[in-house]
Amino acid sequence: MRHVLSALVQNVPGVLSHISGMLASRGYNIHSLAVGETETAQLSRMTFVVMGDQSVRDQVRKQLEKIVTVVEVEEVSSQDCVERDLMLIRVKAAPGAERSQIFELVDVFRAKVVDVGLEELMIEISGQESKVEAFIEAVRPYGIIQLVRTGRIALVRGGTISDEDEE
Amino acid sequence: MRHVLSALVQNVPGVLSHISGMLASRGYNIHSLAVGETETAQLSRMTFVVMGDQSVRDQVRKQLEKIVTVVEVEEVSSQDCVERDLMLIRVKAAPGAERSQIFELVDVFRAKVVDVGLEELMIEISGQESKVEAFIEAVRPYGIIQLVRTGRIALVRGGTISDEDEE
Repeated sequence: MRHVLSALVQNVPGVLSHISGMLASRGYNIHSLAVGETETAQLSRMTFVVMGDQSVRDQVRKQLEKIVTVVEVEEVSSQDCVERDLMLIRVKAAPGAERSQIFELVDVFRAKVVDVGLEELMIEISGQESKVEAFIEAVRPYGIIQLVRTGRIALVRGGTISDEDEE
Repeated sequence: MRHVLSALVQNVPGVLSHISGMLASRGYNIHSLAVGETETAQLSRMTFVVMGDQSVRDQVRKQLEKIVTVVEVEEVSSQDCVERDLMLIRVKAAPGAERSQIFELVDVFRAKVVDVGLEELMIEISGQESKVEAFIEAVRPYGIIQLVRTGRIALVRGGTISDEDEE
């Protein structure tokens, strides 16, 4: 099973090292990690995707809560949440039919071409993990030159009345 | 100065702990970190934003290259590159004039409303760090409930003929 944990941590040197050391020493399988700023300069938010059963999830959570620089831990994936992932990808695309086909895929996936090269395109796409992965498979036949992804981020929905999630 | 380093690493337990431990023990100031999958299952790509002068950048690079599980280190920010950052943000928005104003900001910034609540909106925005930060400042007066950001990711442009970067 896949769990998404979100930890608010103090923005001090060594906090990432402390947390990742704890996770590694216990052999937890961290699928992805995103570390970013928050609305408060003194705090960062780390979003972990952890693979394992519920006991693994509870252990990771407890271990995180023991760390002094961790302010708060939330399990996002057990609640109604929005999850996102961002990718930049360079795809081989010589001008002509193939390039047109890739532009069509970009439209279908609501991605964005951010750079046009002589023989390639650089594309930005955000969405749920499954959407980003479907896009990778869709462009793989044309030739992937390089790609980079952020880890997953997620927020719990607040008092939802309607949902324009993944259009 | 701000440097963006991109490291291709083996996808083995402990690699993050090893790297973050090295960075912490030497006191380097890591501004953001993104860890994500690549086109190859055995490899992950870590994107670091490091603050410091050129000697700091060179030291971080050398230290990373010494780690056995690090396959390749590239300094992206010294080359012509595209940088991106993703954010989810919940903003207070009771129906009425304020909500309309926030929808206008969403249009101007080419962001996306991903969830509509009774008294709030959840918005997704991607772009250069400066764009994401400008959006935070634009919605701050309405009231930020919560936000989460990925670290920065970046790719070097390949043989650019034109540039549709930040529209």
